[in-house]
Parts: sequence; C-alpha cells; structure tokens
Amino acid sequence: MAETKKAGALVVVGSVAIDTIETEQGGRATEVLGGAATYFAVAASFFTPVQLVGVVGDDFPKQDLDWFRARGIDLSGLEVRTGRTMRWTGRYHEDMNVRDTLSFEANVFDGYMPTLPAAYCDAPFVFLANIAPALQARVLDQVKSPRLVGADTMNLWIDIARPELEQLLRRVPLLIINDEEARLLSGERNMIRAARKIMALGPTSLMIKRGEYGVLYFSGDTVFSAPAYPLEEVFDPTGAGDTFAGGVMGYLAAAGDASAASVRKAIVYGSVVASFTVEAFSLERLRTLTRDDIERRYREFVSLTSFDVG
Amino acid sequence: MAETKKAGALVVVGSVAIDTIETEQGGRATEVLGGAATYFAVAASFFTPVQLVGVVGDDFPKQDLDWFRARGIDLSGLEVRTGRTMRWTGRYHEDMNVRDTLSFEANVFDGYMPTLPAAYCDAPFVFLANIAPALQARVLDQVKSPRLVGADTMNLWIDIARPELEQLLRRVPLLIINDEEARLLSGERNMIRAARKIMALGPTSLMIKRGEYGVLYFSGDTVFSAPAYPLEEVFDPTGAGDTFAGGVMGYLAAAGDASAASVRKAIVYGSVVASFTVEAFSLERLRTLTRDDIERRYREFVSLTSFDVG
Repeated sequence: MAETKKAGALVVVGSVAIDTIETEQGGRATEVLGGAATYFAVAASFFTPVQLVGVVGDDFPKQDLDWFRARGIDLSGLEVRTGRTMRWTGRYHEDMNVRDTLSFEANVFDGYMPTLPAAYCDAPFVFLANIAPALQARVLDQVKSPRLVGADTMNLWIDIARPELEQLLRRVPLLIINDEEARLLSGERNMIRAARKIMALGPTSLMIKRGEYGVLYFSGDTVFSAPAYPLEEVFDPTGAGDTFAGGVMGYLAAAGDASAASVRKAIVYGSVVASFTVEAFSLERLRTLTRDDIERRYREFVSLTSFDVG
Repeated sequence: MAETKKAGALVVVGSVAIDTIETEQGGRATEVLGGAATYFAVAASFFTPVQLVGVVGDDFPKQDLDWFRARGIDLSGLEVRTGRTMRWTGRYHEDMNVRDTLSFEANVFDGYMPTLPAAYCDAPFVFLANIAPALQARVLDQVKSPRLVGADTMNLWIDIARPELEQLLRRVPLLIINDEEARLLSGERNMIRAARKIMALGPTSLMIKRGEYGVLYFSGDTVFSAPAYPLEEVFDPTGAGDTFAGGVMGYLAAAGDASAASVRKAIVYGSVVASFTVEAFSLERLRTLTRDDIERRYREFVSLTSFDVG
C-alpha cells in the first residue's frame, strides 16, 4: 500500500476485526466491521490523518479498506496476510454494560508482530489500543520521540501479563481504560484511590471511561468530569470506548498540543463521537457522520453541563 | 414551641429519626441523628430559614432540637409525643450503593398525621420528603399557593401505594428521586425514557440522583448533568440524597425563583452539601460546615466540569 507521510499524524496499533453482535433490543449483526483500532482510527479521522498498524486476512472486505483510505487513514502499516481476519462474536445483556464473548478467533493476528513503516516512526501522537502489552511495547520501541503516547488495556492482560503491563505503563503518559479495568488494575473500588495507584505505576494522566456515566480525567492533582451524552437508546455499545479514545487522540493530534484546556475539549469531542457510535451497529453511524454533526453535539454538551460559575 | 413566620421560608415534612449505622469501612454509629427531613432541613438551613414538620418522641435529644433552632430551623411544626422516636438500623455493603435495613420501628410516627401551623400555610417553597404519599398529599392540602413544591418517594410506596403516589405526582412540579426509584416507577432502564414516562405522570421537572455518578435534571426538553464531587472516601452515605434535596430547595428558596439558571446552580449547591454529608457518620460533618466551605467546593465543581465552549 502506498506510503504517505503526513504532518501531525496519529499512529494507532491494535485489532482490526470482523464482529458478530447480538443485543436483546436490536437483534443481530453478522460479520460486520469491528476491532479496537478500526473504531479508533475512524473516530480519529474526523480530526486528523491516521496511520493504522495492524493485520487483516485476505477475506477482509476491499470496500472497507477503500473507506479507510477515503477517510484519510493511511494503510501502509496494515498487513494483509493469507488467512482469515480476527473474528469476535459477542452478546449484550439487557443491561448493556454486561456482555458475553460467545467466540473469539485470533486467526491472522496469531503470531503477529507489529512493524511500523519508516514514515510512521516520527509520528508525534501514538495510541496503543488494546493488544498484549509486549506488542504495545514493541510499537513504542519503534517510535522516535512522540509528543504524546496513549494506551488502553483490558482485564485479560491485567490478569495474565501484569509484569509486562507494568513495564509498559512506565512509558505511557496517558492511559485510557474503563472503570472495571481501573478497579482490577488498582485493587481499589474508589476511583480517586484507584487513579492514584494507577498513576503511581507511570501514567501522568488517566482517563477512566464509565459508560453511560461519562469519563473521569485525572492529571496531577486535577480532576475533570465529563458526562456521557444522554441517549434514549443505545443500539450497540461495541467500540464506544475505542471511539472515545480515537476522538480524544485525534483532536489532540489536530490541535498539536496536550495542554489542560485542549485535553478537556478532546474528552468532550471523544464523548461526542462515542455517543454517535452506539446509535447503530458496528461503525454504521460513523459512515454518515459529518464534522458538522460533531460540532452540533459538542454544543449540546456545553448546554448539558453548564451552570453559572458564581 | 414558639411560632415564627419567616419570609421566603421553606417547609419540609418527613421523618426525624434516630439511626444506627454500620459500614464495612468505618465501623458503627449507634443511636445517632437521622431521618430524611432532618438531613433536608439542616442542609437547607445553610441557605434559608426552614420550617420542619414531623414528629419525635420524648426521648429525642434536647441538644439536637437546640441545634436545629440555632440553625434557623423553626420547630413549631415538630410535634413531640410521649414515646420513642422513629428508629432505623442499616448496614452498608462494601459497595456503598447497597444497604440492608436491619431493623425499623415507626414508634411515634405510627398514626402520625402532619398538621401545619397556620404560619406555615403560605410558605412559598415546600418539600415533601419520603413518607407515605397520602401524608404528603395531606401537607399539600394545607399549603395555600406555593411557588414550588418538590417531593421525594421510595420503592416501598411505588410498590404498595402506587395509586396514591400517582395522584400526588399530578400535584408535584419537581420530583427528586434516585435512579433505582426512577426505574421502578417508569419500568424503563434508560434514564431518558424513564424521565419521559415519569414526567407524563405530572412533574414538569425531575432530578434523578445517581450517587457517585451525580445527578441528571430534566425539565421540558432540556437535560442538565452534574457530576458528584469525587471523594476519596465515602464514610456514610446515609442522607446524601436528602441533603442534596435540602441544598437544592434551600438555594431556590433563598434565591426566590426557580429559573433554569437558578435550578442548575441549586443542583450544584445540593451536590456540594451532599458531598460533605457523606464524609462522616450521620450529620456530624454538617455540624462544623460553614457557608465558606460550601462556596469553596462550589468553585471546585466549576473547575471539575468546565471546558472551552468552542
């Protein structure tokens, strides 16, 4: 694939997958676009050029690759291997905070070692989506002097690869995880105490995603609380957290800085894009989403949260 | 008790009780001050004069009555009957959102029929704390033309006194309940749909308390989301919701209006006072709390939630 170097670009490494999703409310979506890096890259592409590092099989739909490219997502770091793309099948409970994995096949991801194209190695913004910490570290080894590195992880790695994860966290200034992961990683139920323990492991900033309850952001001694956009119906929560992270990192890469004010705006933009993602199965809502839609809902967040300061 | 009429006063009716509380973290507090109207009245008294309607036994501590009076809480509507004050014993789980009632004695509250002193009947602001809907209605029958009536309720009344509750709700413009009660009352898990169904029963405004996740406020087509103040330790959550309601109604009574802007400020003030309440057992933290402490934490709420609007 053609290599294009873009200023202010954002590198993301993670899974690109084909999902099958069942919900109590919305039925079933079979063999649809999924994967953490996919959601992240598409969300970030509303703000900035993205460089996607991952692997797909030769069964991966060509029209989706074309859609990525059309969105400004560089695919020179996306390997296409003979075999099947990663598959995940999940079923959500009526309480959509709970889901069961019905099946998982790593397929071509099995044994994958991410290698960055040379042009990606001086990327200023890097996001390590949820894959094994050793693979996240391998990507970090390849980037020269990024301005901001963000990472996600999951319960599995906290359980089975804690030493590698702790090693990685010493090199990750911004960790973006959900509340369940924060509790497991810290051993603390209270989010303030959890945040303090996690930040003692390395990250100077921490975003804790709480689903319908929004996001808590910790940096130094400051806390920022952003609500989730109140939705009448969550159709499919898959990828909400990855979309959030994509919006955050995409906005920061476009702004070219990670000041306190920019990070707060980035969190609201991330929340906005995530609120659209869950309105339909898979990435369907993002296919028709416009930057104007995003700006409109950003303004709704302002009215959702504002009160007189004195 | 001496009757004093105060302009802009706020009438509250509800339980005044003696609690025994156990927590996993903080041990046990035996025979301490409690009751929804107690928490409400003390919280509201930081903002406005309060007129307390309820009943206690002759065992109720005189020093607590003196403390109420010193805080500007008028007690001419508080009956003192021969017998024991209402008693409640509860135990919180490690997850403090869950608690068990170990024992409950209505005692002098049994058969109590609230009667308002004449001076209370033209109160502009009235709050019906959580008691049987028929008793709440009886209070409402006695006030002449209040500017704002707020009410709380609980799962018990939704289950066993739904017709009376629905009758009451047609006369209550502001309902303040928690998320569990909102789900039970509406039959909806989603808070937007729950709010719509509840507002169809009468209230034009609805505040849904979500504990550590803050408050959602619905009025007409607008939604306001306020976070909870992030606390490192919740010592005793008893009365947090009643304190919140007291702060809200107290601020509005003092402001003398219920405009959209005032209600948003009132919600933040309510959240602030509630955040102090849970820092110690019973109402202990409120005994030393000052208006300056409240203003300081209000400003912290501003910094907790603010982001650039464009």
